[in-house]
Amino acid sequence: MELLFLGTSSGTPTKTRSLSAVALRRHKARSWLLVDCGEGTQHRLLRAPLSLHWLQAVCITHLHGDHCYGLPGLLASAGLNGRTAPLTLIGPAGLQGWIEHTAAMSQLQLNFALRFISVETLAGGRTSLALEGFDITACALSHRLPCFAYGFTETGLPGRLDTDRLKADGVPAGPLWGKLHRGEVVSLDDGRVLAGRDYQLAPPRPRKLVIGGDNDTPALLKEAVNEADVLVHEATYTEEVAAKVGPEPQHSSAAAVAAFAERAGVPNLVLTHFSPRYRDGGAGLTVASLEREARAHYSGRLLMAEDLAMYRLNRAGELSRV
Amino acid sequence: MELLFLGTSSGTPTKTRSLSAVALRRHKARSWLLVDCGEGTQHRLLRAPLSLHWLQAVCITHLHGDHCYGLPGLLASAGLNGRTAPLTLIGPAGLQGWIEHTAAMSQLQLNFALRFISVETLAGGRTSLALEGFDITACALSHRLPCFAYGFTETGLPGRLDTDRLKADGVPAGPLWGKLHRGEVVSLDDGRVLAGRDYQLAPPRPRKLVIGGDNDTPALLKEAVNEADVLVHEATYTEEVAAKVGPEPQHSSAAAVAAFAERAGVPNLVLTHFSPRYRDGGAGLTVASLEREARAHYSGRLLMAEDLAMYRLNRAGELSRV
Repeated sequence: MELLFLGTSSGTPTKTRSLSAVALRRHKARSWLLVDCGEGTQHRLLRAPLSLHWLQAVCITHLHGDHCYGLPGLLASAGLNGRTAPLTLIGPAGLQGWIEHTAAMSQLQLNFALRFISVETLAGGRTSLALEGFDITACALSHRLPCFAYGFTETGLPGRLDTDRLKADGVPAGPLWGKLHRGEVVSLDDGRVLAGRDYQLAPPRPRKLVIGGDNDTPALLKEAVNEADVLVHEATYTEEVAAKVGPEPQHSSAAAVAAFAERAGVPNLVLTHFSPRYRDGGAGLTVASLEREARAHYSGRLLMAEDLAMYRLNRAGELSRV
Repeated sequence: MELLFLGTSSGTPTKTRSLSAVALRRHKARSWLLVDCGEGTQHRLLRAPLSLHWLQAVCITHLHGDHCYGLPGLLASAGLNGRTAPLTLIGPAGLQGWIEHTAAMSQLQLNFALRFISVETLAGGRTSLALEGFDITACALSHRLPCFAYGFTETGLPGRLDTDRLKADGVPAGPLWGKLHRGEVVSLDDGRVLAGRDYQLAPPRPRKLVIGGDNDTPALLKEAVNEADVLVHEATYTEEVAAKVGPEPQHSSAAAVAAFAERAGVPNLVLTHFSPRYRDGGAGLTVASLEREARAHYSGRLLMAEDLAMYRLNRAGELSRV
């Protein structure tokens, strides 16, 4: 599974960071999902190995502009590029009305259908949506307006063939193994009849990523991150700046998210959505200072998101930059 | 007067060209105006010598997304950057309703007032709007939805002091000249009383720029470009591609615009809004091929707009790249 960040700044873009958007796909798959779509997402896609033809769904965490103002332009460009496949849009109430108003205002005529799904129906883990090899759930967060995290659990993992047992039973390697793997019943030359179901091992543990929106209470994700391999969460400020800014913006500090991930036992933590006051280098407030603060509270694998950086989660559950 | 292009691609952005937006200001002034605001305009502004604090008005030519989808994000960023001065938004009917819907949907609370002006009230040259040293008019074009060009004529040019006459009359250079220039009545040591009005020369000819939206009939601009120094117009295709595409998109070819500008006697022509199929270099369809086609029909000063390029119009009416 791969994450590719298309924007990692909060509120306003910077020269190096565009507004919130992160793509998710199975390893090297053509199909992909997008979480949030700040202005400029389609510009970033011009530099990413992702095609609007193969976008399956856009999941919007909340309706602040820096998380959704890029959606109309992305839809328009998908249309101009010839897309005809339906597209699923998941988001808070209000998203559909806005897209429809925007389309009518700008005479945006798409040659593909939009399928709107209210994130509220997914929240709380009561229901989920099966899409492109993922089971998608949602979890309500705490922000200035309704905001959600999305959980993506891989599905449809093939069972593995019990080659040890095949060898022990003296079944010769070859096309027979493939038939047994597909669950067929086969006859051997020696007269034995074998059932594929007897040679299946359980599929590997499905991996799970949780990608949060803006949120001042990481503990709300306690259940959502249960058995999750990766948490992607905003870390808008350091503690010091958060104290100066006060609680009104309802964002999290790097320390608060890191401490939560430590307590919850999440093995991989990706921080993103940095206030533009944090620069990528030099002295003063930097993303490195956010990282130092997080590391002091978290012993797992910590990554600070960068625009156009790709992160791969291997089968062992280790996330690393590609 | 200076033009700074923030986006020069039509429909979809490319790696080198963002979507339609062009800034206009008096020479090195802090105040500026923006014509169109495609997605990504605020990203381009991060690399331009222009501040959202000093933006006086946004003039939207028409409501296709590639000309206006960047406006909500630009307003949001102006607000986050602490702007409090009112901002004028000029555009077709439908703009205000969309901005208001977008603001409500995304809980966009601005600390500055928006003053909406319908471009329809300016169209036809019957009325104009005085703003920041410009007299702004509008002219209806022909496109798939209501579309306009904006005319910007400089105003408030100071009269020049007739220094030749002052010298001939034996008025000593110094503070007296300043008083006479301001129109005051002054007494000389030799007893003469002089009136400032007798030493004023007419102000220089006001310069005019016309910036068009999408348009398949350049001749509609005939009156608007009368005595204009500069026409900025879309040239989406070469003739060959325009013939293949057919008339439905209602755009102009480079040849059509150039031939019109030649007939109308416009001394400076800037082409922009190039189809993404035209690349900036290499073989095949290139912006250079659009330029060659235009040059074959136009003998004036021709410039092909580039993102973040600045063009200056001097007092002699010559536009050149800075």
